[in-house]
Amino acid sequence: MPPARSALPAWQKLAEHQRAQSRVHLRELFGRDPGRFGKFSLAHDGMLLDYSKQRVTEETMRLLAELARECDLESWRSRMLAGERINQTEDRPALHVALRAATPLRVEKRDITREVAAVLADMGRFARGVRTGRIRSASARAFTDVVNLGIGGSDLGPRLACDALRHFAKSGPRAHFVSNVDGAAIADTLDRLAPATTLVVISSKTFGTQETLANAATARAWLEKKLKSKAAHHLCAVTANPERAAAFGVPADRVFRTWDWVGGRYSLCSAVGLPVALALGMERFDALRAGARAMDEHFARAPLEKNLPVTMGLLDIWNVNFLGCSSRAVLPYDERLRWLPAYLQQLEMESCGKSATREGARAGHATAPITWGSAGTDGQHAYFQLLHQGTHVVPADFIACCRPHHRLRGHHEALLSNFFAQTEALALGMNAEEAAAAMRAQRLPESTIARLLPHRVFDGNRPSTSILLDQLTPRTLGALIALYEHKVFVQSVIWDVNAFDQWGVELGKSLAGRILPELEGRAPVAGHDGSTNGLINHTLRLQSTNRRRKS
Amino acid sequence: MPPARSALPAWQKLAEHQRAQSRVHLRELFGRDPGRFGKFSLAHDGMLLDYSKQRVTEETMRLLAELARECDLESWRSRMLAGERINQTEDRPALHVALRAATPLRVEKRDITREVAAVLADMGRFARGVRTGRIRSASARAFTDVVNLGIGGSDLGPRLACDALRHFAKSGPRAHFVSNVDGAAIADTLDRLAPATTLVVISSKTFGTQETLANAATARAWLEKKLKSKAAHHLCAVTANPERAAAFGVPADRVFRTWDWVGGRYSLCSAVGLPVALALGMERFDALRAGARAMDEHFARAPLEKNLPVTMGLLDIWNVNFLGCSSRAVLPYDERLRWLPAYLQQLEMESCGKSATREGARAGHATAPITWGSAGTDGQHAYFQLLHQGTHVVPADFIACCRPHHRLRGHHEALLSNFFAQTEALALGMNAEEAAAAMRAQRLPESTIARLLPHRVFDGNRPSTSILLDQLTPRTLGALIALYEHKVFVQSVIWDVNAFDQWGVELGKSLAGRILPELEGRAPVAGHDGSTNGLINHTLRLQSTNRRRKS
Repeated sequence: MPPARSALPAWQKLAEHQRAQSRVHLRELFGRDPGRFGKFSLAHDGMLLDYSKQRVTEETMRLLAELARECDLESWRSRMLAGERINQTEDRPALHVALRAATPLRVEKRDITREVAAVLADMGRFARGVRTGRIRSASARAFTDVVNLGIGGSDLGPRLACDALRHFAKSGPRAHFVSNVDGAAIADTLDRLAPATTLVVISSKTFGTQETLANAATARAWLEKKLKSKAAHHLCAVTANPERAAAFGVPADRVFRTWDWVGGRYSLCSAVGLPVALALGMERFDALRAGARAMDEHFARAPLEKNLPVTMGLLDIWNVNFLGCSSRAVLPYDERLRWLPAYLQQLEMESCGKSATREGARAGHATAPITWGSAGTDGQHAYFQLLHQGTHVVPADFIACCRPHHRLRGHHEALLSNFFAQTEALALGMNAEEAAAAMRAQRLPESTIARLLPHRVFDGNRPSTSILLDQLTPRTLGALIALYEHKVFVQSVIWDVNAFDQWGVELGKSLAGRILPELEGRAPVAGHDGSTNGLINHTLRLQSTNRRRKS
Repeated sequence: MPPARSALPAWQKLAEHQRAQSRVHLRELFGRDPGRFGKFSLAHDGMLLDYSKQRVTEETMRLLAELARECDLESWRSRMLAGERINQTEDRPALHVALRAATPLRVEKRDITREVAAVLADMGRFARGVRTGRIRSASARAFTDVVNLGIGGSDLGPRLACDALRHFAKSGPRAHFVSNVDGAAIADTLDRLAPATTLVVISSKTFGTQETLANAATARAWLEKKLKSKAAHHLCAVTANPERAAAFGVPADRVFRTWDWVGGRYSLCSAVGLPVALALGMERFDALRAGARAMDEHFARAPLEKNLPVTMGLLDIWNVNFLGCSSRAVLPYDERLRWLPAYLQQLEMESCGKSATREGARAGHATAPITWGSAGTDGQHAYFQLLHQGTHVVPADFIACCRPHHRLRGHHEALLSNFFAQTEALALGMNAEEAAAAMRAQRLPESTIARLLPHRVFDGNRPSTSILLDQLTPRTLGALIALYEHKVFVQSVIWDVNAFDQWGVELGKSLAGRILPELEGRAPVAGHDGSTNGLINHTLRLQSTNRRRKS
């Protein structure tokens, strides 16, 4: 077994370096070096990445790159891109990059690129057919609405993209998304729609996901009530298991393939993106894929020191493993990126929220932090109090677009002024002298100033990264998504975890399978721990009282 | 100055107790005591609180209650309920309980209850008028839509309640919410609405909130374009500053008062709840207030050991300050409670995300953790990997309703089976023997079992609290909200922070005020740190290139 990460020379040097500079404030770093912004920012294809407000120096970045090399990052990157079976617990390659590759990729004698191209061509024909009205409903009307039934990786990617790029949806059906097995979700969505003009996309790699199949059965019944035997004409499927989709009643020419070599959370550029192609057009979906491809090429070729995903991944390692931060906020100052935090939650926490190393040892270091956040400026009026003055330091990614799509006066300037101000306030803070001066300027009495002072001081030195997109377009969104995909891969290599499996979801699933018949059986249970027994029996009792009352 | 919290005898005993039992697993606790569920669960008015899956023993709970008494919790509770000026930095009482009190409260010679009743009566008349069609649009049509413009506490409460209780909105206008200053938010909302039948609620305590006023100006212009001089007839305001609302053009009889003695995040039961009364009816809003009132009375009277908010607050203290957890997940297994995590984020993080104690010392202990989460079962397919197998332990509140409002078959059983299974899996885990046996039952080869084993082990011992509501109704939602309000107050007393101020939001606000004219001025800036200068100048350059290209 390889040595623990914390035994690597670069890791130890970083720990030492952290101790040596732990009292250096970002104010001091900016004061010392007028060129700091130039040194610690990178640009790529409509995107500016500024990490000069992270608590790093040139020495930090040099040591982090050294750590990356000691962890064989470059070799892992090549192995991933070459289609080696780096997802070793599932014995598969991780080929999401092949979903948008421009150059042919042969893996173990299969021409992956050709398989991808064939599915994308089918998708494109189908999406164009629906959008032009060539492919029509059972009653020969144009489809007005598409409902995507999927959860996790079959939901968050297309949900994010359709919402973020709404501006481009000038024509075509409206997209809706249902993921939760809670019946309230599907009931509320179908209530608003007409079965006669609604297309249902069932998106499940195995075509066996409990939530998605429950929602699919409810949606099919809803279609059948109105359309009778023609309901199947309103179904399509995105799956790696076409047989099951056929058995469910999806016509063969409406089944779009995915593969076991792409994980749900990395699958937006596959047929999982069908709702994007339907709602926005295949050319938008292609532009999103092109943006991701440009980032892939940058990730593959740029030296570690100039590489955006590598830099972002290493900064997170610094914050988590050396500064001790256990969560990270994702703060898009853009209403249209409001699903980005949820999307990244899955991408990051499901990929790297693990305690076992690739080799099966117990990781001796922290792995994925909690990813959380929401669209700004809303958070400023909710949880930013803690970001500024709480006892937990939360590094943050701030994301904004220089140019908006709307023409409303004043809004974008107000939005961006807050974006810049928040990163500045977090980094610099306000010391006691400044806080007292600010209160004196407001002519507060000295006794009030003395009383309030401790509450009005901001420590600052709270790290953030700013990402500025020129504008939110399919291309920049694709690049942003690929940036985070590769960032996560970089972290997984340093943490020595497999970013592409998710064994941690299995236990809950199997226990739920055991409990479900108990809830249907309605007899008191005793086979679990006392709490689970107690909760189940309380529920059964209450449901039965209610049934008696009704009858 | 009082002694540091960590110097209190009970605090030291808790630290000692934690060290002594740190290796005890929840499995062992359940195995040892068949009565554990009975001992560690509490019921109140349609709500069951089960904390037997928290890592506590009777000794833990006894010591926590001792800590509460050493921190004078009972006296602080009385002082809050009596209307004393416990928000000492702002020299105000915190009177959210008065918003739903059944018994008269006189504070400093003012009859608070009468002031509240007068506003609620106005609100009720107005809401009934709009809902019955007695109060009509400028063109004498019934109002079909209400848009609430507010942010933070003027947004999240009514947004949560209107969404959660949608089932009860059989008639009356549809409610919409715009909070973000990003123009995309207001543009997308207004695009879907007709000015002729839309009522706009401007909700801002100061009537000076930047975001809300920007959105209000845009909405007023949108109304005026269609309704000309009659636009004012479509405006109402919720504010503690009626003069400013009048100056903006809101008719005097459409202004509903709030007061400086209720903070935004505690204000749902005030006129801030106007969208609830409009969309669901005043009787629903009253039922929500009654549910909150019942919880207030329980909080005021129940002994600490049987008190739901006290118990929840103390459990968080245990998890944060003794088990070292820095975040807490809120996981409503109910689509209609999807806004609850965001609501609680503000309530908890803005109330207790502070480093200065009431007396102005630096807190020597951790305060509010990060509150995050989303509606289940979605999270299971996103971030539960980390909850089960990550290196950070995240205590979680699981919340579900025994009975659904819909009649779809199978969905609710599937939902609840997952709810129960997840708390069981987190608590008990699966050890190596069990994991190996499970794989053998799947007939996997021994070599595969050996390779996979480390990845399929679940440590368990991850604490959670389960809250079961009989059903989601205005009354149970009101109780749930008040439960968390008082829980937060309990924590603030133990942490010795003022739960009712929010000085941490001021610095960002004042810096944004400085940056805004720089963005409008368009000349390169140099007055900030290198990063902020660089980001602003990058944006200005890009915007100017774009303007040149267009002209």
